[in-house]
Amino acid sequence: MIVVLAGGVGAAKFLQGLTRVVRDEELVIVANIGDDVEFFGLHISPDLDTLMYALAGLVDEEKGWGLRGDSFNFLQMIEDYGYEAWFRVGDKDLATHILRTHLLQGGYSLSEVTRKFCNDLQVRQVILPVTDDSVRTRVETDDGLLDFQEYFVKRRFEANVRNILFEGSESARPNPEVLEAIGRSRGIIFAPSNPIVSIGCILSIRGVREALKESEVRKVAITPLIAGKPVRGPADRMMRGLGMESSAFGVAVVYRGLIDSLIIDEQDSNLKDRIEGLGIQAVTTNTLMTTLESKIMLAEIALKALKG
Amino acid sequence: MIVVLAGGVGAAKFLQGLTRVVRDEELVIVANIGDDVEFFGLHISPDLDTLMYALAGLVDEEKGWGLRGDSFNFLQMIEDYGYEAWFRVGDKDLATHILRTHLLQGGYSLSEVTRKFCNDLQVRQVILPVTDDSVRTRVETDDGLLDFQEYFVKRRFEANVRNILFEGSESARPNPEVLEAIGRSRGIIFAPSNPIVSIGCILSIRGVREALKESEVRKVAITPLIAGKPVRGPADRMMRGLGMESSAFGVAVVYRGLIDSLIIDEQDSNLKDRIEGLGIQAVTTNTLMTTLESKIMLAEIALKALKG
Repeated sequence: MIVVLAGGVGAAKFLQGLTRVVRDEELVIVANIGDDVEFFGLHISPDLDTLMYALAGLVDEEKGWGLRGDSFNFLQMIEDYGYEAWFRVGDKDLATHILRTHLLQGGYSLSEVTRKFCNDLQVRQVILPVTDDSVRTRVETDDGLLDFQEYFVKRRFEANVRNILFEGSESARPNPEVLEAIGRSRGIIFAPSNPIVSIGCILSIRGVREALKESEVRKVAITPLIAGKPVRGPADRMMRGLGMESSAFGVAVVYRGLIDSLIIDEQDSNLKDRIEGLGIQAVTTNTLMTTLESKIMLAEIALKALKG
Repeated sequence: MIVVLAGGVGAAKFLQGLTRVVRDEELVIVANIGDDVEFFGLHISPDLDTLMYALAGLVDEEKGWGLRGDSFNFLQMIEDYGYEAWFRVGDKDLATHILRTHLLQGGYSLSEVTRKFCNDLQVRQVILPVTDDSVRTRVETDDGLLDFQEYFVKRRFEANVRNILFEGSESARPNPEVLEAIGRSRGIIFAPSNPIVSIGCILSIRGVREALKESEVRKVAITPLIAGKPVRGPADRMMRGLGMESSAFGVAVVYRGLIDSLIIDEQDSNLKDRIEGLGIQAVTTNTLMTTLESKIMLAEIALKALKG
């Protein structure tokens, strides 16, 4: 069984390939919940939704998140009520948020709700929130301390980043199924997600980080940075803000001691020696996932790297 | 100042006429909240919404409720999640329910939320929920005790009615602004709404019924029944279920002691003498509101009857 540590859009694309080459029951996806946000009282789990919609075949492929063919009439009316509709929530998408909020308020855990949703939408792989407790990624910027979505969506990650906090991670209990999956796995993949906030939040949960360190199976990460830039999102800005090198080498530094191999882009082959100097095998390939074929190819490279 | 006791669709149509002939600041609308329903954790106030949308010029004129040009993608997705989408909630409409629920959970009262919404949507008249406390209209039927919306929408009012309960009305405190408006009014109109559940719920709030009885201004009701049938809804079935005559005369019996005049349809002129035998003046006119003109005409008849 293979465990994939996953953020949102990048991980979802990678999983669209991986699920073509790994049997459904051999895959456990551990999802980041640090980006979860309350929007007018609704509990939104952007990464869980993106993963779920992608694996259900319902995702808006162009954006990489949200539901294909969704409408945005709710948001328009929210603006008519004089509010800023800064978080992009579709009308169909609202069903997920309203049901999740209702079920959570009814006493169900986030993992129970996720299991139910995956079942309803015919997702055949297991998606596990890393914890059922609340952990919130907060971004300390020159403009003050911001919730992740406020930093990311509302302010389009323009504020200069000084520090990242995972509020609640100290006391958050890891999802027991996550620990069990890591214990039983024959390989662990760090998806091409933001290493600071997405994978970073997963690693901030004490028991999870320890379980990964204790596990003796091979661990392979895929860098989300190509020539120093992410395909989407603020990974490079965050890394620079934290005084890191915003490159595949910087990603290797973040994951040092946790992974055996790092898959980097062909464009970054000049970083191979520096990465291997950290004791991490560097595998070069095309990491840009534009077609299903490129996603499958990247998945196959990751599986090969898992074998060593 | 004129106070109108109002249910949903029938009252909204009547008010579309009345607001053309009465100045905005001279009108206070007291709304039924007994039909309010929780739908996946969202607090929905169907009558408040219908009145607000109608007076904002946003109502779906064909249905008489909901927002014009709304979409129903949320409900479609709710069904994809395996739930029964029995309550018709539009995508734009959801903004109202989500915001209301969020504001109520944040400690605002239903009247405060209603005032804010009316302001946002540029409704120039005052709409007051009859109480900020919870009162729930429940229908005792041959199939058991049903919430009003369950009886009305889900089961299409097919179940035989035995009794009507207004749960919480004993302890509900009337909205102080309602009592003040009744005290200051120069006339009170009972809109052409269901006398049993819509106006009935308003009258079930102890202080409100007493304030109406104490008020010495003229009170005029408009029957929602034409030739024994309502234009919409279960008024006739409910009245028969409760052992009443389902006619304008039956409506007069319900309102006996509370009103001075009852406006009935021309088709029911044969009931005039029986109604007047109850000590209620009967005014006959065309009560079917199909055009703006017919709504204005009915409003003018009601204003005339208020003068006695």
